[in-house]
Amino acid sequence: MKYSSKLIADAVAEFQKLPGIGEKTALRLVLHLLKQDKQKVTHFGDVVSSMRSDIKFCSTCNNISDHEICDICSNPMRDHSLVCIVESIREVIAIENTNIYRGTYHVLGGVISPIDGVGPDQLNISALLNRVQKGDVKEVIMALSPTIEGDTTIFYLSKKLKEYNIQITSIARGVSFGGELEYTDELTLGRSIATRLPYENVLVKNN
Amino acid sequence: MKYSSKLIADAVAEFQKLPGIGEKTALRLVLHLLKQDKQKVTHFGDVVSSMRSDIKFCSTCNNISDHEICDICSNPMRDHSLVCIVESIREVIAIENTNIYRGTYHVLGGVISPIDGVGPDQLNISALLNRVQKGDVKEVIMALSPTIEGDTTIFYLSKKLKEYNIQITSIARGVSFGGELEYTDELTLGRSIATRLPYENVLVKNN
Repeated sequence: MKYSSKLIADAVAEFQKLPGIGEKTALRLVLHLLKQDKQKVTHFGDVVSSMRSDIKFCSTCNNISDHEICDICSNPMRDHSLVCIVESIREVIAIENTNIYRGTYHVLGGVISPIDGVGPDQLNISALLNRVQKGDVKEVIMALSPTIEGDTTIFYLSKKLKEYNIQITSIARGVSFGGELEYTDELTLGRSIATRLPYENVLVKNN
Repeated sequence: MKYSSKLIADAVAEFQKLPGIGEKTALRLVLHLLKQDKQKVTHFGDVVSSMRSDIKFCSTCNNISDHEICDICSNPMRDHSLVCIVESIREVIAIENTNIYRGTYHVLGGVISPIDGVGPDQLNISALLNRVQKGDVKEVIMALSPTIEGDTTIFYLSKKLKEYNIQITSIARGVSFGGELEYTDELTLGRSIATRLPYENVLVKNN
């Protein structure tokens, strides 16, 4: 598309770099900002820039943080003997929003995926082993995606963690709660049957 | 949603202010930017801020511009006797992208809409009359939306422009080119019949 202003063309090009935003949407966003006060748009730009520049990654768990240690790792009310291993901060946000989990996290920064050139060395694994080595961790929960890459990572980590005296668990896999069995995909349904367990273990216990 | 970082929460809140962007999409955009180089994100913020701060509105036609006079108004190759009246810069961009029109524009900045409290005084009409008064304009093309507000604006402008010796035209309304008649909405189809014209006038002429 042609714009009569280079400033507009540049701004559209910048928005277009964001995921899921094409040229028409980018233009809509730019024209929206154009209608706002100068101050507000400057504030938008500043907030986005400083978000990236000032953000820190927690030296313990690699979660995003405004400080050296994130709010979860520095919270004495959390159970520091419980470490939930996740791929990225997305999963931290998702699990935090369940309001169920009171332990801590460890953000790997990805999963082992030879196809994408991601090996164990690219992941934040040595920091995890250091945490476990200190002896405070009693249980490690694998909260990785139920994919080949996720399972490879679980397998690799469990081998590394076996030498320590800790429990290694995984989040439950099976049919979704509240979902209709007939609409569940065949793979999930088939695996749910193959990995069946005593019914008492499936029902949610009151804490 | 809860975020373990205020920087992230602020950035998500800023993106959420944009049209059509909810919290989940905003978070996706923020997490994408978080993975980019600091430099790139700072550049993004700067481009967006300066777009709003540095943009000018053409003193002739009110189109967005990087200079005092926009590229279209300052282009000697354009036909300055032809002025296309549009609601906003969106329509300028849309018409420019057809590559058909070689005249100039006049951006009203809206249409008359009593319900939204927009009267003729809020629109960029006096500047249009000034342009016409100078005597260079031979034809004014109304390219406004075929809505009640658009028609009210056309009616108002045509009354104001009648005293000058210029032609007042409107873009054609009717069934879309390439569209199937049976899928055209009743209003458009009905009006196309009511405003039928000699078939020679409908066919596109070679310039």
